[in-house]
Amino acid sequence: MDYQAVLDEVAAQVKPQIGRGRVAQYIPALASVDADRFGIALADVDGHVTGVGDWERPFSVQSISKAFSLALVLADDGEKLWRRVGREPSGNPFNSLVQLEYENGIPRNPFINAGALVVTDRLQTLTGDASTTMLDFLRAESGNPDLAFDQEVAVSESAHGDRNAAVAHFMASYGNLHNPVPTVLEHYFWQCSIEMSCRDLALAGGFLARHGLRADGSRLLSQSEAKRVNAVMLTCGTYDAAGDFAYRVGLPGKSGVGGGIVAVVPGRCTLCVWSPGLDARGNSVAGVAALDHFTTLTGWSVF
Amino acid sequence: MDYQAVLDEVAAQVKPQIGRGRVAQYIPALASVDADRFGIALADVDGHVTGVGDWERPFSVQSISKAFSLALVLADDGEKLWRRVGREPSGNPFNSLVQLEYENGIPRNPFINAGALVVTDRLQTLTGDASTTMLDFLRAESGNPDLAFDQEVAVSESAHGDRNAAVAHFMASYGNLHNPVPTVLEHYFWQCSIEMSCRDLALAGGFLARHGLRADGSRLLSQSEAKRVNAVMLTCGTYDAAGDFAYRVGLPGKSGVGGGIVAVVPGRCTLCVWSPGLDARGNSVAGVAALDHFTTLTGWSVF
Amino acid sequence: MDYQAVLDEVAAQVKPQIGRGRVAQYIPALASVDADRFGIALADVDGHVTGVGDWERPFSVQSISKAFSLALVLADDGEKLWRRVGREPSGNPFNSLVQLEYENGIPRNPFINAGALVVTDRLQTLTGDASTTMLDFLRAESGNPDLAFDQEVAVSESAHGDRNAAVAHFMASYGNLHNPVPTVLEHYFWQCSIEMSCRDLALAGGFLARHGLRADGSRLLSQSEAKRVNAVMLTCGTYDAAGDFAYRVGLPGKSGVGGGIVAVVPGRCTLCVWSPGLDARGNSVAGVAALDHFTTLTGWSVF
Amino acid sequence: MDYQAVLDEVAAQVKPQIGRGRVAQYIPALASVDADRFGIALADVDGHVTGVGDWERPFSVQSISKAFSLALVLADDGEKLWRRVGREPSGNPFNSLVQLEYENGIPRNPFINAGALVVTDRLQTLTGDASTTMLDFLRAESGNPDLAFDQEVAVSESAHGDRNAAVAHFMASYGNLHNPVPTVLEHYFWQCSIEMSCRDLALAGGFLARHGLRADGSRLLSQSEAKRVNAVMLTCGTYDAAGDFAYRVGLPGKSGVGGGIVAVVPGRCTLCVWSPGLDARGNSVAGVAALDHFTTLTGWSVF
Repeated sequence: MDYQAVLDEVAAQVKPQIGRGRVAQYIPALASVDADRFGIALADVDGHVTGVGDWERPFSVQSISKAFSLALVLADDGEKLWRRVGREPSGNPFNSLVQLEYENGIPRNPFINAGALVVTDRLQTLTGDASTTMLDFLRAESGNPDLAFDQEVAVSESAHGDRNAAVAHFMASYGNLHNPVPTVLEHYFWQCSIEMSCRDLALAGGFLARHGLRADGSRLLSQSEAKRVNAVMLTCGTYDAAGDFAYRVGLPGKSGVGGGIVAVVPGRCTLCVWSPGLDARGNSVAGVAALDHFTTLTGWSVF
Repeated sequence: MDYQAVLDEVAAQVKPQIGRGRVAQYIPALASVDADRFGIALADVDGHVTGVGDWERPFSVQSISKAFSLALVLADDGEKLWRRVGREPSGNPFNSLVQLEYENGIPRNPFINAGALVVTDRLQTLTGDASTTMLDFLRAESGNPDLAFDQEVAVSESAHGDRNAAVAHFMASYGNLHNPVPTVLEHYFWQCSIEMSCRDLALAGGFLARHGLRADGSRLLSQSEAKRVNAVMLTCGTYDAAGDFAYRVGLPGKSGVGGGIVAVVPGRCTLCVWSPGLDARGNSVAGVAALDHFTTLTGWSVF
Repeated sequence: MDYQAVLDEVAAQVKPQIGRGRVAQYIPALASVDADRFGIALADVDGHVTGVGDWERPFSVQSISKAFSLALVLADDGEKLWRRVGREPSGNPFNSLVQLEYENGIPRNPFINAGALVVTDRLQTLTGDASTTMLDFLRAESGNPDLAFDQEVAVSESAHGDRNAAVAHFMASYGNLHNPVPTVLEHYFWQCSIEMSCRDLALAGGFLARHGLRADGSRLLSQSEAKRVNAVMLTCGTYDAAGDFAYRVGLPGKSGVGGGIVAVVPGRCTLCVWSPGLDARGNSVAGVAALDHFTTLTGWSVF
Repeated sequence: MDYQAVLDEVAAQVKPQIGRGRVAQYIPALASVDADRFGIALADVDGHVTGVGDWERPFSVQSISKAFSLALVLADDGEKLWRRVGREPSGNPFNSLVQLEYENGIPRNPFINAGALVVTDRLQTLTGDASTTMLDFLRAESGNPDLAFDQEVAVSESAHGDRNAAVAHFMASYGNLHNPVPTVLEHYFWQCSIEMSCRDLALAGGFLARHGLRADGSRLLSQSEAKRVNAVMLTCGTYDAAGDFAYRVGLPGKSGVGGGIVAVVPGRCTLCVWSPGLDARGNSVAGVAALDHFTTLTGWSVF
């Protein structure tokens, strides 16, 4: 398949959607991003990458980092993680805290903030430095040694972090955080602040399309584990719109409020799309539309 | 692939699980089923069917009927349905009523009871006889003209139906049921009471593997619609265990408290497994295990 | 104290509030009431009654009936009722169904609809005709043999009764209704439909000020029971505004969406005020203001 | 009335209840208290105080402090407080966080932890030292200059304070805390740690029986404000048992998990009872029973 032609076609079809939605406003560093940006990149399982638009321009990965921290913990720790975090969709967002209470401090899945805090806590215990561990991994997989944290974003997240602090203390009250709450929050915010381009992310997520093999051919996850990360991405990866995303796109995906979405066609390729305007549920409007066009054009929905 | 050999192997592996869990107790007709039953059938896209164990023995389809009523309404009515029912997973079951209240009487998805009542209401409006319409469809697709309602089950469900009546009246208070509540409940209970074997159900669900084509080659759903029903099955088809089912099995599936599960390998085949012992979330213990073995043996998870 | 002068003063002070708020709209018979009505009556413990404004004009008692059904069941059945209904305030209304679910079908108190349905169910079991029993009681206590049900209101409530039907079926699913759901709903709606004036209600509620003695001097409730009904009125009698009512008025009270409020000064008198405009929580705007003025003028708050 | 004789009689009647329930376990300093303690004190409006049993033995006031911080803020700030905290009962405890979310960070009332944190935050803003302000007030009213914080308790509360930290950060995310979260938590924990005897507390709460007048005759609260604090105590003062407390005791009261309860007979006297064994809702078993006997013996329920 001529990937470049497909991406060009996707970019042409999605044009009317670019700029729609609302750029994340809760911290200045995100609010100042140009709403009209759009990029998409595709990396095949052999590591060839191509793209369109702003596909080489870095943006804030935000919650996309949750997919990588999950993979890193599963790689090191296996199934034990599931004693501390579930893998069920979380229903509507307003329930987050009552669900934590109802389920004794066990988050529903690793992709809601509560679950990602548990994953980060575990990665911190396993490595002693959760955020640097992730940055090193992303540099290696993307082949981009210049990847870095965005300090302004990290500090700003922390300053606006009362809700995450509330969730973290709440889980700590159930004994489900093992490191000090401020330590966990700090590594969590630094992970979210990493800046990457569509190109970087499509390459970094390559192991999910290669059934667990890293860029250098070594194994990060078993075939079964890699499929399972994809399953969690499909059922829980796009906030409270996972059902809609499965319905429209039909691929495992993980989105972030920076406007990026990573999506996986198992055995074929990893995509990353970016456009900052978000819908009411926090997913990129043009990004979802682009992936919808992509699976329609290629027929590569998993269904 | 030698399907018969695969199913034999699955049946051998699953043996220790048969009889585990708890047979549904809320109505006598279900409670009296022998817990040690186990059957599995596979129908390929050409309509060849094979099976193992109790695969030709009828059981109560219960919630598996929800997949068929959804398909029948989408076939007739298209996307309009989604104004009255969502397609997001519902989170934990205890939230069902508060979610309905929070979301103004719009159920989260067509596979929770609330959503299936809306689908049945719509099918009733479209056809004038929702339960007979479904029975006729199932007879045609399975090639089994003897399929029938189990009157004892239907009457018994109705007699124990206060919780469904509560949900139905609650939605009616938001104007989201158009037929009289007792009519909707009656057709809903009759649909659930249909008796079918694994063989019947694997054949009847064939259109989901054939991207929308019925047994006679005519089109029920467009390719895109068929994929979308599969997407809803994967994200919402197994009660509050959809994430776990995606993680372990990795196929679209729909379960019922009669102990049956229908699962789809898009483009290849439809399976139906049956064993009455249920886990805490209402899914067949041996059934889920059998499908887990099946995808491990074949590598046919969608991920 | 010159009650007539006090009521005149209250009526003068409350004038700017009359007509404020919103007349109940959910059934036509209530929606057509003139918003500018206002009446207040005071019956002392000797049965002398005086009033101002529209104090002799009948209106729909609605939820005020809940105080009488509670008293009738306690009189006959004593403390046993509390096994089936609690006596704690219910928090915000949006929780009603989730609370019922969390607390296994036991309503929080007898003055939310769920609790009143349980009380009506018990009264039906005890008497065979809950609504007529209440009507007879109210006729006797008010000395007004012409009191009657308003059939138009009762039928209309029933036609708009899906939410109450949902609550009733939900409790039935927990075994907390003993009569058929339609029977309980019917008697509940008929009780709510009774038409009474402020004069009638102030007299009918006299036993609450007389520590349990009826108008004819016979005992309905023990002194202790009467105090306890007052306690439940104070903590739960005005929907989700009981705290505010206690804060501003400081008397046990029971309101209805017809715009009436009965309030009790233990040992001294019973008041009834009526004005149809309701605040956002369903209590009469001018009614609450009038009682606030009354306790400020007299110093007769229980605190 | 011979108060000493009444208290002796109460103490005799309550004997079988002493030692029942469970001493608070969440911090060692509370868990080590002798479960068999019981004391009760009564201070009349003239400041004469009498008592029985362990009435002069200090214990940890815990949530009883919430009544004093509320009074101190109302005295200084008047009705403005109610923009930041409600005065409605909170329903069952499991809803605390979802209610905060549903109501945009406004706690239901000043006696749940969330509300008391807001009150402490305001007192801190008004005085610059919320906990010392309260200690000085309690010393003056009780006439006991030796009252002190229990440092072990305060430090221990802080070390086990993740749930309160969660609530505080959650409100901060809505802008409803104006001082830094750690500052507010610290003053809150120190207030709770104050040690007082029944004698001290009965005297310190005298202004509530004297309609707002302090021990030295100066006015802390207006008559109307004092009544209103009593109203909030009656509807919200005993956790999720306020309805039951009103039903059985019929007096405004505020309890703490140290086993103390302060209750007010407006215009007559203030009582304090102490016994460390708590019921499932956190109120002293023998304490509630003693107050129940007291109002039965004296007839001094407000109802």
